[in-house]
Amino acid sequence: MGGKDLISIRDLAREEIEELFELTDKMDKRLASDSKPLKNAVIATLFFEPSTRTRFSFQSAAARLGADVLSLEDISTTSAAKGETFIDTIRTMDGYCDLIVIRHKLEGSARLAADVAERPVVNAGDGGNQHPTQTLIDLYSIRRFKKRIEKTNVCLVGDLKYARTMRSLLYGLGMFGANVTLVSPKGLEMDKAVISEVKSRFSASVSETNAMDFSDCDVLYVCRIQKERFADPYEAEKVQKEFRITGENLKGAKPEMVILHPLPKIDEIAPEVDASPNARYFEQAKFGVPIRMAVIMKLLGKA
Amino acid sequence: MGGKDLISIRDLAREEIEELFELTDKMDKRLASDSKPLKNAVIATLFFEPSTRTRFSFQSAAARLGADVLSLEDISTTSAAKGETFIDTIRTMDGYCDLIVIRHKLEGSARLAADVAERPVVNAGDGGNQHPTQTLIDLYSIRRFKKRIEKTNVCLVGDLKYARTMRSLLYGLGMFGANVTLVSPKGLEMDKAVISEVKSRFSASVSETNAMDFSDCDVLYVCRIQKERFADPYEAEKVQKEFRITGENLKGAKPEMVILHPLPKIDEIAPEVDASPNARYFEQAKFGVPIRMAVIMKLLGKA
Amino acid sequence: MGGKDLISIRDLAREEIEELFELTDKMDKRLASDSKPLKNAVIATLFFEPSTRTRFSFQSAAARLGADVLSLEDISTTSAAKGETFIDTIRTMDGYCDLIVIRHKLEGSARLAADVAERPVVNAGDGGNQHPTQTLIDLYSIRRFKKRIEKTNVCLVGDLKYARTMRSLLYGLGMFGANVTLVSPKGLEMDKAVISEVKSRFSASVSETNAMDFSDCDVLYVCRIQKERFADPYEAEKVQKEFRITGENLKGAKPEMVILHPLPKIDEIAPEVDASPNARYFEQAKFGVPIRMAVIMKLLGKA
Repeated sequence: MGGKDLISIRDLAREEIEELFELTDKMDKRLASDSKPLKNAVIATLFFEPSTRTRFSFQSAAARLGADVLSLEDISTTSAAKGETFIDTIRTMDGYCDLIVIRHKLEGSARLAADVAERPVVNAGDGGNQHPTQTLIDLYSIRRFKKRIEKTNVCLVGDLKYARTMRSLLYGLGMFGANVTLVSPKGLEMDKAVISEVKSRFSASVSETNAMDFSDCDVLYVCRIQKERFADPYEAEKVQKEFRITGENLKGAKPEMVILHPLPKIDEIAPEVDASPNARYFEQAKFGVPIRMAVIMKLLGKA
Repeated sequence: MGGKDLISIRDLAREEIEELFELTDKMDKRLASDSKPLKNAVIATLFFEPSTRTRFSFQSAAARLGADVLSLEDISTTSAAKGETFIDTIRTMDGYCDLIVIRHKLEGSARLAADVAERPVVNAGDGGNQHPTQTLIDLYSIRRFKKRIEKTNVCLVGDLKYARTMRSLLYGLGMFGANVTLVSPKGLEMDKAVISEVKSRFSASVSETNAMDFSDCDVLYVCRIQKERFADPYEAEKVQKEFRITGENLKGAKPEMVILHPLPKIDEIAPEVDASPNARYFEQAKFGVPIRMAVIMKLLGKA
Repeated sequence: MGGKDLISIRDLAREEIEELFELTDKMDKRLASDSKPLKNAVIATLFFEPSTRTRFSFQSAAARLGADVLSLEDISTTSAAKGETFIDTIRTMDGYCDLIVIRHKLEGSARLAADVAERPVVNAGDGGNQHPTQTLIDLYSIRRFKKRIEKTNVCLVGDLKYARTMRSLLYGLGMFGANVTLVSPKGLEMDKAVISEVKSRFSASVSETNAMDFSDCDVLYVCRIQKERFADPYEAEKVQKEFRITGENLKGAKPEMVILHPLPKIDEIAPEVDASPNARYFEQAKFGVPIRMAVIMKLLGKA
């Protein structure tokens, strides 16, 4: 991976991801180490769209490795505001750093940045499209909490039509041989073409349902349902209530079932579930630091 | 103090503060040292309300110690803007760093953050309530400039009713045995209950006046009078003029009297006083760095 | 230069600039060195006016040297917003760092900051007035690309009346003995008094024209023409079209001619020129890092 870019989870082979996870295990153990392997590196985190969580996670990873950070958080202070093209901005930034982390609301912007920049580029989210380090965190969390991803029963619950990062997760789960159940309200099902591709490419087990039954589930992965997606606000509220994760609809679930969420969450998980030992999403978020340390090390050819 | 939080000056015993001041003396001497005791630490400075001065002072302290900083300055770029709860934000940030510095306009927010976070939390101001490192700077400045706080005659001048951080300072001065005179316009006197508590708890000497007479004063601590506090703008202007610190109303003061101010100041101190050797508030502000170095070292158990 | 300020290019003698360029050569070679000469330094970059490019360039230079950065980017979060004077803000910041980099939209603000601060101050642009490190980058780029500045034929093209940083560049080129041709639309010529001064002080060769003829040109330095400068929008468009750098109007130029631009550029250079090997402005921008490393080292007395 040295010198390459990380734009989509599809840029990585299963073997590369497994290597990355082994490196992540090592990084997790050396979080507070005094020896800093990247003392001579400067990383630019260009957040054309705000995302404190992702930014802090990358910056914390950089700090743990000894790298310095150039942080852009507010698009209104950029040359873009003066009429400069995106390509010119990236070409200039490329001259100031060793690796670029980019978040932008436009799909394809990270790929474009990678084409222009000589330095490695990491996509930290381009619109609703790709956010590969999030997918890596999701897969790594399952591996950590359940020892393996293969044959693990994973339910993806929520709006699977518009939450398009769920497509990347499905792809990753298929690649690692998980048994996936897609649970969504009627009308918010995942795109059939995406499911077909994952099934045929990885001979993956993927089933679909509109029912909130988690009796066989090992890992429950929750994402939001947005009211704006419904024409009828009454319908929206009804569906939101029905698909909310509560103590009630988790009755019958395995006691050791793990609940994950990409965060931030709003009200899709009830307080009693939030307080349960099954809820592991804050630990999941924490893995963002060692995962991103591993990605940075790999792309800079230091691992 | 290792592993604990610093939310209010009341969290500290006099002995702990004295230890902190000795550590501050040491920190002040090693500001530009090449050896960095906190190379492996990451500190998050979460400023939900802007305060460049306090933020820079904490970040400078972190840098002098070799720690890295994750800096949040603009609430509009946070997940809070997406509807996430304050508690979720803190729980996530807690996973990315070793110590949290928080400033928030709501009273009690720092205490809430401390309850939620596993990492030590330092309150850098929660509304009009507490700002313990400012109180430490104030006490330390008196100790540095006057050799001791005990028996020193300290006048607190200005709006003592609404400038509630003055209550913490009074508490600290009482704890250290200073002779305090409270000088405020009629109607802006300090809350009687606060005075009573300090008197009875520390057998402190606290007197009150509305007169600008500083003939016995060793340390003059000035804070603002805000026009908005008066119903009548004519009355406001009259009081502001009368309580402004000028060469005129300092006639008769001891030549070695020290003037302190928490800064920023607007027009409550006249230019001729600003230029006098008695004005020591920029040195006072500068002590913010070694004080915060000492606090960070203590809370991380490194001192 | 140790302990001094850098406010205007006129603060430097030719010998000092040459020393700085030799140091820049060294800095350029040690960009990724693990040894950090300024581990104990804290640099405040106070951008009262946004400029991501300049800020990143200074922050990258600081990082390469091992120095820490306190970054102010948004004036709305400063004490200035609370009514504090600029002088008070600078005096406070002066107590938190070892060197101040300042950008402000008001002319003379950097000089004022330098008068108030005990620490060295670098002007990173004060309105349309001075931006000395940009002039140093421009001169250094010519020296790097053309081996020497003396006797090199340099054309400055564009709005030379309002783009006042061009005056500093003309001054620098005169000082180093370049042959300068000033090319501008009618009505946007450079101030005659500035030209006279450079001619008489350095016996410099400076000629003026309104014609886009670059047959003798070694270095073409392009700056923008702003529509707002014209009373008549039709006239503005006509002039912009005529003064745009295109493959067409570069016919007859020397094949090894170098094109420079301070960036950001909008549409004053055509895509075919942008893609040509003559276009060197992104390399020019990149020199901003070693130049600023050299300036910081000099002002901190570490070179």
